[in-house]
Amino acid sequence: MKRSEVIAAQERARQMLAAAGIVLTSTETANIEVADFGLHHLTSEGLELVTYVNTDRYCAKELVLFPGQTCPEHRHPPIHGQSGKQETFRCRSGVVWLYVDGQPTPHLHARIPEVSRAYYTVRHEIVLRAGEQYTIPPNTLHWFQAGPEGAVVSEFSSPSHDESDVFTNPNIRRETVIEE
Amino acid sequence: MKRSEVIAAQERARQMLAAAGIVLTSTETANIEVADFGLHHLTSEGLELVTYVNTDRYCAKELVLFPGQTCPEHRHPPIHGQSGKQETFRCRSGVVWLYVDGQPTPHLHARIPEVSRAYYTVRHEIVLRAGEQYTIPPNTLHWFQAGPEGAVVSEFSSPSHDESDVFTNPNIRRETVIEE
Repeated sequence: MKRSEVIAAQERARQMLAAAGIVLTSTETANIEVADFGLHHLTSEGLELVTYVNTDRYCAKELVLFPGQTCPEHRHPPIHGQSGKQETFRCRSGVVWLYVDGQPTPHLHARIPEVSRAYYTVRHEIVLRAGEQYTIPPNTLHWFQAGPEGAVVSEFSSPSHDESDVFTNPNIRRETVIEE
Repeated sequence: MKRSEVIAAQERARQMLAAAGIVLTSTETANIEVADFGLHHLTSEGLELVTYVNTDRYCAKELVLFPGQTCPEHRHPPIHGQSGKQETFRCRSGVVWLYVDGQPTPHLHARIPEVSRAYYTVRHEIVLRAGEQYTIPPNTLHWFQAGPEGAVVSEFSSPSHDESDVFTNPNIRRETVIEE
């Protein structure tokens, strides 16, 4: 991503967090993580994150999704002799459509990004509106997309090792690369 | 506590959470935990809590403190062969004065509840305003008090076993008893 694109996404995420009543320090604001997963179409497939704390015992983040933005399908495998990451998504504002392994839902609310269609394989839909939450078991494939107003989602979890996430799309690179 | 006092405290906590932009389900609202610690002066020493999730791997709660309300000094000892609870307090609204073991602060912002003065022994002050956070190591004595506008504090932690907390005040009973 170009640096200007990162800065614009950070500002947009900051505004959405503020509108949801979430206060950040100036350091946190300056360091909002913008992930395009190396796919180069951030507003379609991407995610904005603020990691509050990530110790060897637990982790807490805020996730921001722009309207219609999708976090690509992935799972959290076992690591360092422990079960994979268990995580609870709690929607704070907007609506998020979460998909996990299980009985496929006939008509999805989400629109699967066309260029990546083959890499969205689980179709059991869970709708989360503000105040609603869902806990994803370790090593379970999942992906999620925000509704038309975007979404702010709190994530409470066991320790986070983003670099070990397994994505269905082999073209994905989790670490954001910024072009100067 | 009388049931009417619990209901009034739940309503007050609900209003403070809503003002901080935090959305609860109707079930969560109806089950806001009101803890007077068996001391029978809730607005001086007490705490209101919403537990979002508490698995064997992590826990997340919202804590509500009325103006000047104090959560009594306690620590989280080792349990089930694991280290005591490690917890991160993130202030969402208002201001909270947190006290932990360490170099005593000469002039505390908090006013120690007079009837319980002997049971507040640690005096190292940490001031948390909205957006600021602090992680308390396992088994460390701590207590905290809200400023004049009250406070909403998110707690991210390892698993919570409230019944095993060790309070400095031997008169404390952690479980709330409601008189019919």
